[in-house]
Amino acid sequence: MLNAEIYVTLKKTVADPQGLTIKHALHSLGHKEAKEVRMGKLVKITLDIKDKKQAEKELEGMCRKLLANPIIEEYSFVIKEE
Amino acid sequence: MLNAEIYVTLKKTVADPQGLTIKHALHSLGHKEAKEVRMGKLVKITLDIKDKKQAEKELEGMCRKLLANPIIEEYSFVIKEE
Repeated sequence: MLNAEIYVTLKKTVADPQGLTIKHALHSLGHKEAKEVRMGKLVKITLDIKDKKQAEKELEGMCRKLLANPIIEEYSFVIKEE
Repeated sequence: MLNAEIYVTLKKTVADPQGLTIKHALHSLGHKEAKEVRMGKLVKITLDIKDKKQAEKELEGMCRKLLANPIIEEYSFVIKEE
C-alpha cells in the first residue's frame, strides 16, 4: 500500500474569487499580513500498489482524467510509503 | 515574504462523501487500485512576514479562526521561504 497526496491548484493566470474572499476575511480578522491567498484541492489516496513507478503512472492518469481540469488547473503529487 | 501551504482535512472519523464519489469515479475509469480517497482543502498564502516563528503563530490563528472547523477538520501547514 502506498499513500499519495495530490495537490490541485488554479493556474497563476486564473482568477481565484474564493481565495480573494478568504483574504478579505483574514484581513477583517486582523491578519493583514496575508498578501495573497489561493485556494486549491488536496486529494489523499491510498493505493493498492507496491511499486512507486507504477503508482506515479496511475496518479498521472487519475489527475489527467478526473482530478484536475488542465485548462485552468495544474497538479502535483507526492507518494509516501506506509 | 514567506509562502505557506495549509492543508485542511476531515478527521478520520468523519464521513467523506466527496471522497467516496471520487473513488467510485476512479474505479469506473479503471483505477481499481484506489482503495481510499479523502478530499481536503489546500490554501496557499503569501505572508508579509520575515520571521518564521511569527509566521507560524499567525498561521495557527488563521486556521483556528477561519480556515478549519475544529469539530470535524484538522490542519497542518508548511512554510517555504521565497
